Amino acid sequence: MVRSIYSEALTSRIAYNNLLLLCRQAPGRLSGSPQLNTAVQLTRQFLLEAGADTVYLQPVLIPNWKPGQTEAHVLNGNRKVALHALPLGNSVPSPAEGITASVVEVHSFDELNALGRERVSGRIVFYNRPMDPTLINTFAAYGRAADQRVSGASKAAALGAVAVLVRSLTLASDTFPHTGQMRYQEGIAKIPAIAVATRDADSISCWLKQNPDVQVFIKTTCRPAGDTAGYNVIGEIRGKNPAKGILLTGGHLDAWYNTPGAHDDGAGCIQSIEVIRLFHTLGIRPEHTIRAVLFMDEEITQTGGRKYAQTATLEKENHLIALESDRGGLLPVGFTFDCNEKDLEILQKLKPYFEPYRTDTFLKGGSGTDVAPLRSSARILAGLLTDSQRYFDYHHSAYDTPDHVNIRELQLGSAAIASLFYLMDRRF
Amino acid sequence: MVRSIYSEALTSRIAYNNLLLLCRQAPGRLSGSPQLNTAVQLTRQFLLEAGADTVYLQPVLIPNWKPGQTEAHVLNGNRKVALHALPLGNSVPSPAEGITASVVEVHSFDELNALGRERVSGRIVFYNRPMDPTLINTFAAYGRAADQRVSGASKAAALGAVAVLVRSLTLASDTFPHTGQMRYQEGIAKIPAIAVATRDADSISCWLKQNPDVQVFIKTTCRPAGDTAGYNVIGEIRGKNPAKGILLTGGHLDAWYNTPGAHDDGAGCIQSIEVIRLFHTLGIRPEHTIRAVLFMDEEITQTGGRKYAQTATLEKENHLIALESDRGGLLPVGFTFDCNEKDLEILQKLKPYFEPYRTDTFLKGGSGTDVAPLRSSARILAGLLTDSQRYFDYHHSAYDTPDHVNIRELQLGSAAIASLFYLMDRRF
Repeated sequence: MVRSIYSEALTSRIAYNNLLLLCRQAPGRLSGSPQLNTAVQLTRQFLLEAGADTVYLQPVLIPNWKPGQTEAHVLNGNRKVALHALPLGNSVPSPAEGITASVVEVHSFDELNALGRERVSGRIVFYNRPMDPTLINTFAAYGRAADQRVSGASKAAALGAVAVLVRSLTLASDTFPHTGQMRYQEGIAKIPAIAVATRDADSISCWLKQNPDVQVFIKTTCRPAGDTAGYNVIGEIRGKNPAKGILLTGGHLDAWYNTPGAHDDGAGCIQSIEVIRLFHTLGIRPEHTIRAVLFMDEEITQTGGRKYAQTATLEKENHLIALESDRGGLLPVGFTFDCNEKDLEILQKLKPYFEPYRTDTFLKGGSGTDVAPLRSSARILAGLLTDSQRYFDYHHSAYDTPDHVNIRELQLGSAAIASLFYLMDRRF
Repeated sequence: MVRSIYSEALTSRIAYNNLLLLCRQAPGRLSGSPQLNTAVQLTRQFLLEAGADTVYLQPVLIPNWKPGQTEAHVLNGNRKVALHALPLGNSVPSPAEGITASVVEVHSFDELNALGRERVSGRIVFYNRPMDPTLINTFAAYGRAADQRVSGASKAAALGAVAVLVRSLTLASDTFPHTGQMRYQEGIAKIPAIAVATRDADSISCWLKQNPDVQVFIKTTCRPAGDTAGYNVIGEIRGKNPAKGILLTGGHLDAWYNTPGAHDDGAGCIQSIEVIRLFHTLGIRPEHTIRAVLFMDEEITQTGGRKYAQTATLEKENHLIALESDRGGLLPVGFTFDCNEKDLEILQKLKPYFEPYRTDTFLKGGSGTDVAPLRSSARILAGLLTDSQRYFDYHHSAYDTPDHVNIRELQLGSAAIASLFYLMDRRF
């Protein structure tokens, strides 16, 4: 049956066509955007077409931050050079007339603090520490560079900075701003936070070496706009013995405002829908309930995942496994499992089924942001593990388009999840 | 040192910039083309810049087949639909006025032969058997579909066909003709052989079901034009103890006329040059000679590989290993080794060094076309093994552009070869 699951996945174009539709009809589907409403309706329809016997929307209050319009350029002597720059999520707007200030480049908070208030106050702090290309696990490189983006604004504001420019978190040398979430620290002035493309970051750094008086102009109308209504989209094939519990596969439906969101996380949503389709098309009648959940608002405040977990607890739902696919529609190499040793042993026995597909790296470890709130109630949390070399080329940028998703790599992921669930349904 | 090799490879943009230059300045560098001469000069220069202590050109007589101009369309009733079509390598031209004939679709030689002369004579045979998407190893899928392209023309001509149209060998649904080599059988009339894009193949098949009288027009001026001069490009770092032998890494410099040839096999050439650069930059002084060879004419008649092997035999050169990278600049997953069991055991002991890079699949098996003629004289033949899911999307088509090569995947391959050679230099 595992062989049949893979063959059906690899010969069908439905999942990839759905991904195309999602990215074309609902690009920039950030929380609070009309595109996210389109995405909800579209994926609800995909779930019905996939053969889910129950499809419903779970209401959730989500944040509503508006990216607005942004302009940024460098003033280097008489030259004015436009920057590829976009606001980080949650950023406050600049004053209406914009901000023009000199720039101070730093690579760490230590370096920032060493400069002190005197050399930071009234200036724009430019965080320019690249992701480390020598790390083979690019998620580790991301993790080690993300502090600048997430916490940089408040750290700089505490020393009197008027705004921050942050080098995009990508290993690529490109002209795309890669945006993402930032958080202000309570009690510190909120200043605008802007991502700048890596090539522009390299240029600014170069200009600063020649002329320490380089000025940057930033104008952005991005702004928080209160909470709004959203929906987790849920579809399932009810098990023959639903008391045995739920096998959940999910992705997050929201994506940054500047991207079609094909890898992050259109792919994970489409794969989760495809798992339903594979069970339905192949006529597999599971004992457990197979459920696909497309979570709201992973990118900003993760309200979707928390709402889902709260409801599951209230309704005393029993999750055997809650798996998320949020590492791109890239070549799957295995799974991460967050569970007790005994369950891990049972799961390890399934590895031989995945060897022919080279998806047999079973690691104990992290799952996904959206399923994490189920920690206390789900028996096993899991993640689809993909090869990470290319992921940050696309991540949170306009380059995350469906033509950068390979149909076979996407479908090897769908098939891997469906096969895992098929096997678990019989062993647990 | 393995760690240093990977770090240097992953932080340098030289190899990728060289690939860009090669693909931009010498696209369509098929044997006999002026672009191939450009590629020879360019890569000779790259080898000098990489720090090779000896760089030379090895003359070899190569074929000179000209792709000419091609036009193809379908006549379906009153509709005329242009086809994405290009001649297969070695094809004869059509008559000057072109060929217009009805079409008969087949999926195998058995099916062709069952039709017999009566239903084939005077028609264009349309081979439309797709590559099997359910095979995880896409090279196996390619191997099982390639007979149509390689031998289809003569099989059809033997039954009186006037030309063949061959479905492109790719798993993608695209509008690119994927060309490649075909061979005529002696004593059978030579008829034009044309590759057609997979989407066009699907359309033709669909039209034929509605109207068996669909006609196709083919006009092509492609033609063989006698042999010409070419050169294998060779660069090396001479070992401290050259009598210990040569560690050879190679790729093929020629590429089809319709493609920049980034994956096939610009990547393999650039990786081989990069191995020289890595040894030079890191100051590694090997015992064995490290040699990069960029072979001529892999695509048509493999004269470059044979000439290299002949010369090596004449000069009594001692090759410990001859490795080819010709599976694209994709994620490397390991190596294939063609050698005796004892050497394989020694090599297997090196696997732990490659585990952190997930390049630790060491298989006994096929090497590469260009190093195969060294079988009787080289101790170990080898190939760089890459993940094959995406390879045939690019293969032999205009889609094989450098923006589809990921700098990290490319460089993980260079680093893997350099690390293998570094370790072998000490163990053998």
